[in-house]
Amino acid sequence: MADAYQLQNGAGDKKPLLELYVKASGIDSRRIGACLFCQEFWMELYALYEIGVARVEVKTVNVNSEAFKKNFLGAQPPIMIEEDKQYTDNRDIEGRIFHLAKEYSVPLFEKDPAVEKRIESLYRNFKLFVRAKTDFDKGKKTSQVPSDIDSLPAAIKIHYNRIVEQLASVDQLLSDRQTRYLLGPSMTEYDCELMPRLHHIRIIGQRLLGFDIPHNLTHLWNYVLTAYRTAAFIESCPADQDILHHYKEQLNLFTNQRETLQSPTKTHTLPESVLDEIKRLGLDRK
Amino acid sequence: MADAYQLQNGAGDKKPLLELYVKASGIDSRRIGACLFCQEFWMELYALYEIGVARVEVKTVNVNSEAFKKNFLGAQPPIMIEEDKQYTDNRDIEGRIFHLAKEYSVPLFEKDPAVEKRIESLYRNFKLFVRAKTDFDKGKKTSQVPSDIDSLPAAIKIHYNRIVEQLASVDQLLSDRQTRYLLGPSMTEYDCELMPRLHHIRIIGQRLLGFDIPHNLTHLWNYVLTAYRTAAFIESCPADQDILHHYKEQLNLFTNQRETLQSPTKTHTLPESVLDEIKRLGLDRK
Repeated sequence: MADAYQLQNGAGDKKPLLELYVKASGIDSRRIGACLFCQEFWMELYALYEIGVARVEVKTVNVNSEAFKKNFLGAQPPIMIEEDKQYTDNRDIEGRIFHLAKEYSVPLFEKDPAVEKRIESLYRNFKLFVRAKTDFDKGKKTSQVPSDIDSLPAAIKIHYNRIVEQLASVDQLLSDRQTRYLLGPSMTEYDCELMPRLHHIRIIGQRLLGFDIPHNLTHLWNYVLTAYRTAAFIESCPADQDILHHYKEQLNLFTNQRETLQSPTKTHTLPESVLDEIKRLGLDRK
Repeated sequence: MADAYQLQNGAGDKKPLLELYVKASGIDSRRIGACLFCQEFWMELYALYEIGVARVEVKTVNVNSEAFKKNFLGAQPPIMIEEDKQYTDNRDIEGRIFHLAKEYSVPLFEKDPAVEKRIESLYRNFKLFVRAKTDFDKGKKTSQVPSDIDSLPAAIKIHYNRIVEQLASVDQLLSDRQTRYLLGPSMTEYDCELMPRLHHIRIIGQRLLGFDIPHNLTHLWNYVLTAYRTAAFIESCPADQDILHHYKEQLNLFTNQRETLQSPTKTHTLPESVLDEIKRLGLDRK
């Protein structure tokens, strides 16, 4: 039913053991699926594990398997288990992680309304863009898909413009703050929320929409680079193929065999020109 | 894709319009399914609607339909929509309802750690009991199912005992407080959490487990009666058949045609002897 990714630093200690059940990929149930809430909590748990507050085990589950359905009676991943307690509600999972972080003074849940405001609707608006653009592209010849952003009718361009505006506003915030993560030198829940979403935007943009995060948003790209250098992100990140498969499945788009049979790969590098600019500005040495 | 249950008190006003998408029944996608989080938020929204703070529309969605998947890209109900904002995370849905309640001074989210502690693991433990007992009953002749509670081996009885203990502890709390709802004369989030779960325990107990809420827990039964007299609960409550179907589906149990073809019925009455006792004690006149 589940494959285990075990994170343990020292056996036999009395640290709480937190098991996280994350959604498996629709291609291969041993692989991590593209569930954003799963990755968000995984990253938070990883932060607790890294500083030795908790033991963490992550298991991928096939939500369509009888074993899973029976064990969780209709609950959906992410699901967290600690001893005999089952947390099936995002509010409860976060509540438990919050209390552990508080108990050990881990600054994972500092509040910052300015950051909250900038990131809250980014992914929501990206989903509107994905839907509108893939609808527009439907029925077109394969060679014409994805269509050029410039060729989009105004009603769809509006979604594109909104995304670009929002990405620019996060870039601006990062430029103003000159910090590695959104709030400072260490990762907080806001990063656990934003990093996986930015990565989805990048992968789906490239592979499905003919869209890329604008290359002039150097601070934002540097933040993406930070994600790619953050163990909590890397460990919990699904392969490109599994991210793409998830969206295609939901959008009812044709999945070609190449994707499902390919060895899974993870895009964790930046476009060369962007990386050069980051290095020129010395942003990556912060 | 969706059937609408519209709650409106006065057209053309400027109150926020909140749309809640709840999971449809697996028997008939026009009927409400047995999703506990959906009912919880529906009840909270109903409370806001009742006092005229918001307009509310509830729609049932078939999560397996292409239209649903495409619209929400893999998100699961409950999903709340307000203008162009889509809330797909229980934390965000609750956050929005919380802020609306605060804005209009609706005491829906008062905190009470004693109540929280008594109700938090009740349903979780009930699920363990359901799994263990239905496993034990599997392979038995139809005439011997559900098996008697008294005949259960110790390992399963332990789950039964824990449920009864926890129900008794909620009964005691209600007896001590002598209040209509858990915190006082009006409904709070705790009631929106507990009432649907108690109702599931009752319906699944009766129809699947040969179990009933002990009849001597008069204060708890009176609380169930309160649920059955609370519009927010009644409106949002799935039919018995739809509740049963949900559990059978998850447990991979045989669903007979009688259930799926029956006209949906809702058990919203109490056992006669229990009701007599409630009346004798005058609890229902509080």
